[in-house]
Amino acid sequence: MIAPDYGHAFSLWRSAAGQDWIDYTHHAFVEGLRDGSLEQASYLHYLRQDYVFLIHFARAWALAAAKAETYSEMAAASATVHALVHIEMPLHVKICATHGIDSATLEATQEAAGNLAYTRYVLEAGYSGDYLDLLAALAPCVLGYGEIGRRLKGNTGPFAQWCDTYTGPDYQALCHDVGALLDSSIVRRLGPDWHLLPRAQTLQTRFNTATQLEIGFWDMAQNPGGT
Amino acid sequence: MIAPDYGHAFSLWRSAAGQDWIDYTHHAFVEGLRDGSLEQASYLHYLRQDYVFLIHFARAWALAAAKAETYSEMAAASATVHALVHIEMPLHVKICATHGIDSATLEATQEAAGNLAYTRYVLEAGYSGDYLDLLAALAPCVLGYGEIGRRLKGNTGPFAQWCDTYTGPDYQALCHDVGALLDSSIVRRLGPDWHLLPRAQTLQTRFNTATQLEIGFWDMAQNPGGT
Amino acid sequence: MIAPDYGHAFSLWRSAAGQDWIDYTHHAFVEGLRDGSLEQASYLHYLRQDYVFLIHFARAWALAAAKAETYSEMAAASATVHALVHIEMPLHVKICATHGIDSATLEATQEAAGNLAYTRYVLEAGYSGDYLDLLAALAPCVLGYGEIGRRLKGNTGPFAQWCDTYTGPDYQALCHDVGALLDSSIVRRLGPDWHLLPRAQTLQTRFNTATQLEIGFWDMAQNPGGT
Amino acid sequence: MIAPDYGHAFSLWRSAAGQDWIDYTHHAFVEGLRDGSLEQASYLHYLRQDYVFLIHFARAWALAAAKAETYSEMAAASATVHALVHIEMPLHVKICATHGIDSATLEATQEAAGNLAYTRYVLEAGYSGDYLDLLAALAPCVLGYGEIGRRLKGNTGPFAQWCDTYTGPDYQALCHDVGALLDSSIVRRLGPDWHLLPRAQTLQTRFNTATQLEIGFWDMAQNPGGT
Repeated sequence: MIAPDYGHAFSLWRSAAGQDWIDYTHHAFVEGLRDGSLEQASYLHYLRQDYVFLIHFARAWALAAAKAETYSEMAAASATVHALVHIEMPLHVKICATHGIDSATLEATQEAAGNLAYTRYVLEAGYSGDYLDLLAALAPCVLGYGEIGRRLKGNTGPFAQWCDTYTGPDYQALCHDVGALLDSSIVRRLGPDWHLLPRAQTLQTRFNTATQLEIGFWDMAQNPGGT
Repeated sequence: MIAPDYGHAFSLWRSAAGQDWIDYTHHAFVEGLRDGSLEQASYLHYLRQDYVFLIHFARAWALAAAKAETYSEMAAASATVHALVHIEMPLHVKICATHGIDSATLEATQEAAGNLAYTRYVLEAGYSGDYLDLLAALAPCVLGYGEIGRRLKGNTGPFAQWCDTYTGPDYQALCHDVGALLDSSIVRRLGPDWHLLPRAQTLQTRFNTATQLEIGFWDMAQNPGGT
Repeated sequence: MIAPDYGHAFSLWRSAAGQDWIDYTHHAFVEGLRDGSLEQASYLHYLRQDYVFLIHFARAWALAAAKAETYSEMAAASATVHALVHIEMPLHVKICATHGIDSATLEATQEAAGNLAYTRYVLEAGYSGDYLDLLAALAPCVLGYGEIGRRLKGNTGPFAQWCDTYTGPDYQALCHDVGALLDSSIVRRLGPDWHLLPRAQTLQTRFNTATQLEIGFWDMAQNPGGT
Repeated sequence: MIAPDYGHAFSLWRSAAGQDWIDYTHHAFVEGLRDGSLEQASYLHYLRQDYVFLIHFARAWALAAAKAETYSEMAAASATVHALVHIEMPLHVKICATHGIDSATLEATQEAAGNLAYTRYVLEAGYSGDYLDLLAALAPCVLGYGEIGRRLKGNTGPFAQWCDTYTGPDYQALCHDVGALLDSSIVRRLGPDWHLLPRAQTLQTRFNTATQLEIGFWDMAQNPGGT
C-alpha cells in the first residue's frame, strides 16, 4: 500500500518499522472494523480502554508543549492538547453513550496492562528524553490512525462512524500538521541530514517501540476478558 | 485592602505571605502603571520581558496538564494553556506592535536574570514536585495580577489598556476558576483540613518564593538597563 | 505468613494489596526457585530481563534522589542508586557469566513488554507525581524481594545463590532502611494520620499497580519464548 | 591563559563563551580567594550558600543518572552524585564547622536569589531537555572550578584549604572524567561533527547561560547582605 504523505520523518520511520507497521495498521482488530466482523464486546472494551488512553495521550501532548523550544512548537502541541481534551474526548464520551456506556462506567474503567504499558512508555520517553523523543513516540498513534482512516475510506459497515472520524478531512489535516511538525522540529535541531546521525537510531527505536505497543493495544482490545 | 475572593487556599497563602505580598502587588512599578508615572522605557522593557515570561508560563501550565490526576484537572490546565498561547500571546504581540516593538525584536529579546529565575523556579517546582507544588508556584502571578487589576479598576491614565486587561471580567473569571481549581485539587488530595498538615508548609513556601520572584521581576522590569 | 517488619506504610500497603501481594510473592516462578523445579531456560531468560530491569530501576532511584526534599532523603536514595549501579549490577553481570551469558549477550537483550511496562510505570509515576508517588511505586520490588528472601531462607536447592542474595543481612538491612525511609518521608509531608487522607489512596494505587506489574514480570520471566 | 585539557566539547564551549568565561573564572571573589583579600563575612556567606547549592547540584547530577541512555553514562553520573552527597557535602559541613557555622545554622540558610536562579535553571534544563542539555548546563561549574583550581595551585594564603580542594589530583581527575563523559555522550548521539549541527547552538546556550549564572553566584556571594 502507498504510504500517506505525512512528511519525510514519518516516511523513513514507517519504512524502517517494516512488518511491525503492517501488523499494527492491518491488525485483526482493524480488519474487524473494516469488514464489520468485530465483536461488539470487543468494540465496547476498546471504547472504554481508549477513553483511558486518550487521557494519558493528552497528558503526553501537554508534556510536549512544556518541552517545546519555540512558540510555534508550543502552539502546535497545545492545539493538539486542546483538540484532544475539549473536542475528541467529549465526542468519545458521546459515542460511548450511544453504545450504552454511561459516563460513570467510563470513568470506572480499569486500565488494562497493554494500555498502561503504551502510555507510560510514551510519557516516560518524553520526560527522560527531549521534545523529539516524545514526538517520535507519539507519531505511530496519530499517523497510524490516519493511515488506517485512509484505507477504510468510504466504509459503510457497522463501524462506519469510527472509520469516518479518521478518514475525514479534519483528522487527515491533523496528520499533515503533525508530520510537518516532526520534520521542522527535527531539522531545526539536527539539520537536514539528521537521518545519518546516531540520534536518528534512538528516534527510530522510539517509533518502533510505540508501534509494537500499538499492536499490544489492539491485542488487548480484541480480548475483553483479558488485560 | 480587602483580599479578592479567589478561594480558600489563596486566602490562606496571601495572608501568610505577609509583607511580601504587599511589596509585590503594590510595587513601585505597579504604582507607576496606576498613576501614569512609569517611564516609557521601563514599560517597553517590561513588555519585551513579559513576552519571554509568557512562553515559559504557558509551558508551566502545559506541565500542569501533563501532571493532572483527573480529566477536569487536565481540562482546566489545558484551557489556561490554550488561552495563553492562542489568545494572550497574540494579543501581547499586537500590543507590543502598537508600541513600536515588532515581532522580530520581540523574538530577539534577551531573557533577563530576574525573569529566568522566576520561570525556571516555577517549572522546576512542577517537575520535581507534583501538581500541587506547580499550582502553588503558579498562583501568585495569576491571582496577584487579578488583585492588582481589581485595585486599578477604572484607571484612565496612559496605562489604562494594561489595567483593563486584568480589571476586566474575563481575567477576573479566570482568577475565580484558578482559585477554585486550587481548592478542589488540594482538598481532593489532602482533605479539608490540609492546612494543618506539614505538606501545607511546602505549598506555602512555593507560594512565598514565587511571590518574592514576582518582586524581583518588577525590580528587573523597572530597570531597562539592568538584568 | 507473618509480614516482615519493614515499617508502617509497607504493612498497610501490603495488607491492602491483598491477593495480588500473595500472587506476586508466591508466584509459580518463585516457587520454582524455591523447590528447584524452575526450568533453566526460564531462569536464564529472567536473568537477562532482570539486567535490563535493574538499569531502569536504578534510573528510578536516581530520579528519587533528584526529587528529594532534604539532604537525608537524597542521601538515602543516592546510596541505593550507588548500591544498584556499582555493586548489584556488576554482581548480576558476574552471575550471568557463570551461567554462560556473556556481557555482549546481556547488553543485546531485547526488553520484554512485561518488563518495559513495569519500569516505565514506575518512572512515569515519579516524573508525574512527587517523591512519595515514586517511593510507593518502588516499594513492591524492593520489599517484596525481601519478603521472598526471608521465606526462602536456608534454601539449598539449585537456586540457593539467588535465594541467599535476598535472604542475607545486607539485603534485609536495605529493606529496613527503605521501609524507614517510606515512613519518615510520608509522615514528614502528610503527618502521622496520613492513612486517613485521600492522598493515601493514590499511594496505595501506586503500590497495587506496581505489585500487579511484578506479577506480570514473573509471568513474562517464566515464558522464555514470550514477551 | 592556556585552557585545561578537559576534552573537545569543553574546549569549544569555553572559547565560545568568551568574556563571560573570563569574568566567571577571574571574578573578584576568586581573586579575593587567591590573594587573600576576600572578606571573611563574604567567605562565610559563600560557604553557607554553597551548601544549599550543593544539594541542588547533587539533585541535578541524580537527574542525569535518571536520564542516561547507557549503563556507563548512568554509572558516571551516579558516581558523581555519590561523591557529592557522601564525600563533598560532609566535607563541606566539616569545613563550615571549622569556621564556626554549625550544622543547624547551615540547614537554616536562606537560599539567595542568585543561588536559586542558577540551580533551578540547571535542573529545568535537564527536565525539559535531555541528558546533553543537562550536562551542558552542569559543565561550567564542575570544569570552571577545575580551571580555577589549576590557576590557584600552590596558594599559601588564608584560603589555601579551598584552593587545595580544586587544585588536587582527585578534583582534577574528576574534571577529566566529566570532560570525557561530555565528549562521549555527545558523539554517541550526534556523531563526530556535532559542532556543525544546529543542536550545538542550543548546547552552547546552555553552557553560556550557566556561565553567566556562575558570575551571578559570585556576585551574590561577595555581598553577604544581599540576595
